[in-house]
Amino acid sequence: MTRRFIVIGGVAAGTSAASRARRTDPQMEIVLFEKGDYVSYGACDEPYYISGLIPSWENLLVRKPEVFKQKQNIDIRLRHEVTKIDPGKQTVEVLDLDSGDKTVHEWDALIIATGARPKKPALQSCEASNVFYLKSLNSAISLKRFLDQEKPENVVTYGGGFIALEMAGAFAELGIANTVVIRGKQVGGRLEPEIAEKVEETLNAYSGPLVKNAALEEIELDDAGRAKALVTDKGRFEAQAFLISIGVVPNVELAQAAGIELGPTGAIAVDSRQQTSIKGIFAAGDCCETYNRISKCATYSPLGDIANKQGWAAGENAAGGDIIYPGALGSWSFECFDLEVASTGLLSSQAERAGYEVFSNMVTHASRTHAQPGRKKIWVKLIADRKTHKLLGAQIAGEEGAAQRIQALAVALFKQMTVEELADVDLAYAPPFSPVIDPILIAARDATKRLAKP
Amino acid sequence: MTRRFIVIGGVAAGTSAASRARRTDPQMEIVLFEKGDYVSYGACDEPYYISGLIPSWENLLVRKPEVFKQKQNIDIRLRHEVTKIDPGKQTVEVLDLDSGDKTVHEWDALIIATGARPKKPALQSCEASNVFYLKSLNSAISLKRFLDQEKPENVVTYGGGFIALEMAGAFAELGIANTVVIRGKQVGGRLEPEIAEKVEETLNAYSGPLVKNAALEEIELDDAGRAKALVTDKGRFEAQAFLISIGVVPNVELAQAAGIELGPTGAIAVDSRQQTSIKGIFAAGDCCETYNRISKCATYSPLGDIANKQGWAAGENAAGGDIIYPGALGSWSFECFDLEVASTGLLSSQAERAGYEVFSNMVTHASRTHAQPGRKKIWVKLIADRKTHKLLGAQIAGEEGAAQRIQALAVALFKQMTVEELADVDLAYAPPFSPVIDPILIAARDATKRLAKP
Repeated sequence: MTRRFIVIGGVAAGTSAASRARRTDPQMEIVLFEKGDYVSYGACDEPYYISGLIPSWENLLVRKPEVFKQKQNIDIRLRHEVTKIDPGKQTVEVLDLDSGDKTVHEWDALIIATGARPKKPALQSCEASNVFYLKSLNSAISLKRFLDQEKPENVVTYGGGFIALEMAGAFAELGIANTVVIRGKQVGGRLEPEIAEKVEETLNAYSGPLVKNAALEEIELDDAGRAKALVTDKGRFEAQAFLISIGVVPNVELAQAAGIELGPTGAIAVDSRQQTSIKGIFAAGDCCETYNRISKCATYSPLGDIANKQGWAAGENAAGGDIIYPGALGSWSFECFDLEVASTGLLSSQAERAGYEVFSNMVTHASRTHAQPGRKKIWVKLIADRKTHKLLGAQIAGEEGAAQRIQALAVALFKQMTVEELADVDLAYAPPFSPVIDPILIAARDATKRLAKP
Repeated sequence: MTRRFIVIGGVAAGTSAASRARRTDPQMEIVLFEKGDYVSYGACDEPYYISGLIPSWENLLVRKPEVFKQKQNIDIRLRHEVTKIDPGKQTVEVLDLDSGDKTVHEWDALIIATGARPKKPALQSCEASNVFYLKSLNSAISLKRFLDQEKPENVVTYGGGFIALEMAGAFAELGIANTVVIRGKQVGGRLEPEIAEKVEETLNAYSGPLVKNAALEEIELDDAGRAKALVTDKGRFEAQAFLISIGVVPNVELAQAAGIELGPTGAIAVDSRQQTSIKGIFAAGDCCETYNRISKCATYSPLGDIANKQGWAAGENAAGGDIIYPGALGSWSFECFDLEVASTGLLSSQAERAGYEVFSNMVTHASRTHAQPGRKKIWVKLIADRKTHKLLGAQIAGEEGAAQRIQALAVALFKQMTVEELADVDLAYAPPFSPVIDPILIAARDATKRLAKP
């Protein structure tokens, strides 16, 4: 009997899992159900498609269903929604969204890669046709179509996370005035305050006004039922379109209904092999938790590269292999206009909550030698344990080389280096790429000096 | 009695040593003798001054003598050549190159930072006025002045190291035809063959012809005594100017005459505190050896950042401190036209000579996601120990993000990571900066897979 492997969801984690499963077991039957219109696309590229940098949404497709079929014998069913998992019978119930037909499929191994959906305010008006959320490729296509067809002169963005900040650049690129309204006192909940300041300076220089500490109260609709203003306790912001970008929630309902345990973050709990609380059922990507190597806790980290890597582990293990997903450090990067922002490890505040005696320092330096006309400012913040001097986290911002520089710090963090050790690393130097002593080393030396003081 | 600290040479190592000594001991008298016209300049920036990117040689000056005096009470004597070190009497004999006066100066601590000079062929004609070498700021100013005044239409470069390859870009920028002639079978003696190939493709695309396996036999002079052709066993290459770039030799004669031991490389031998064989005499920079952490051998590594770091250690220790220079990994980078080339650790050939059973692999990937129009190809070569799977070295080339990416591998090498561990590091991902799985991780996964095969 041929084993059957079923994957629910086909963006990053699901297709990674299916592909890896195929490599692990060339014989098994692999079926992937995706309720949307597309699989295997680069969701993180969506702001760059909307900005026009990437000419068509088709460029975002990494691999089309027919290619999965031809090259890997993976059977992809688009617009098929899995409506029920029966762990006892080892079946899923599937609804064909076009025909309305329901079918039941048996599986020997199951991977849940249902992803996440945008968080929405508890307001009916947030479903108006000119209120947008950015997550799926469909959502990106809708927004782009609206911008192309309706040519709004202005938008209001509610939220200040990565997507909102990337979209600020996209709106500017399109010549659309954009007011960013955030609930908190700084942009980017995962940014150190000093780094958030640099992002806000960038927004103030290149984007429309930034309004902070403004809690959403209402979205006002016009007579035609279209949104006309975002109302907050800090004022009313009119626009022709609205982008709500306040985070995502994991799609866990299907798993939960099947009796699969959720973790403390509300996402699906998985072990180091990406197996859920039910043997034979694996989960990967934005629907499940991610083990953080530094905090040693389960976290919710809905990021494309993590989804891809978890999918790889889940696919291998579900197909009979035995590998572990090694956990995340909490590394990420994004671009806000020309400012690169990147991070690894814990924030100061997270480190404090984790019980560390936290040391941090920030240095301002340059991306190249002082003689190079193209040099840009770069800010490096290190977060370390005051007792052991071990690195706990780092953030870098700058218009050149910030995103790439974080990778060296991610490796340092992975190996639990102290700031003293980091200061001793022999990094490569050439004037177009760094000052004689790289900003990372300058930061590590500065930390070494400060930590040596009583 | 005030202690007197004397530094011989004032480019990278010498000024770094003097500055660090001042921070270590605010009281001591610090005198730096430099036989040239300048101190504290960015020699690695010289090709970019010659290309015109950096408008004036004055931009290369990091700190002028009067600033050293005012801010740090460091007494800099330009055009003063130390002609003798007497370790017994603890004196140096100094010749004022302008007045011809000789003076003798006592020291309590001495740092030798005499640097290196360009290697020259054993030909009288190699001193002709239109034959250039690039090392000191004076040499850069001379070449630039010649190019500005004489406006040669063409040059021939002999040698294919970093400087020759950086200068190929500079000559092209200036519209000067350039034929690069090399003795060996590939450019860049420190490049892996596959990476050298990428550099050669770049040269072939953007520079004049590249002539390989050509041994220099003669430089032909015209009646006015100016060079007119470089004659090799592969042919005769006429030009209006010539750049000879075949490496450097350490300036050790002064140290050697004082009885200071040289190491196996021919440079001054130093211990981990940068002390020479004579107590109280330290050396740093291009005149001395560098301990390599991977080969665990003394090497000759004349690089600006190493000079700076060795100067720092030498200055601290000579002033009474006690720190060690932690050794180099062999990290470096350079740019040839738009191609970034970077390396860390041992070459395959070096690893083989060191007795390792060498594994290596190279992957071709992209600097960003496939949807990003600005993405460039990137090549990552890993070199590892087939027994332990530990990384021994790495080289990266590409038109985007190659130089910065090597830093993560330098940290990995510093921590003696295996390729399997490297594959598990959570690197940051965003479409403008990397594909979902970074080329470094792709290379590490590929190495993991290949090493797992029997």
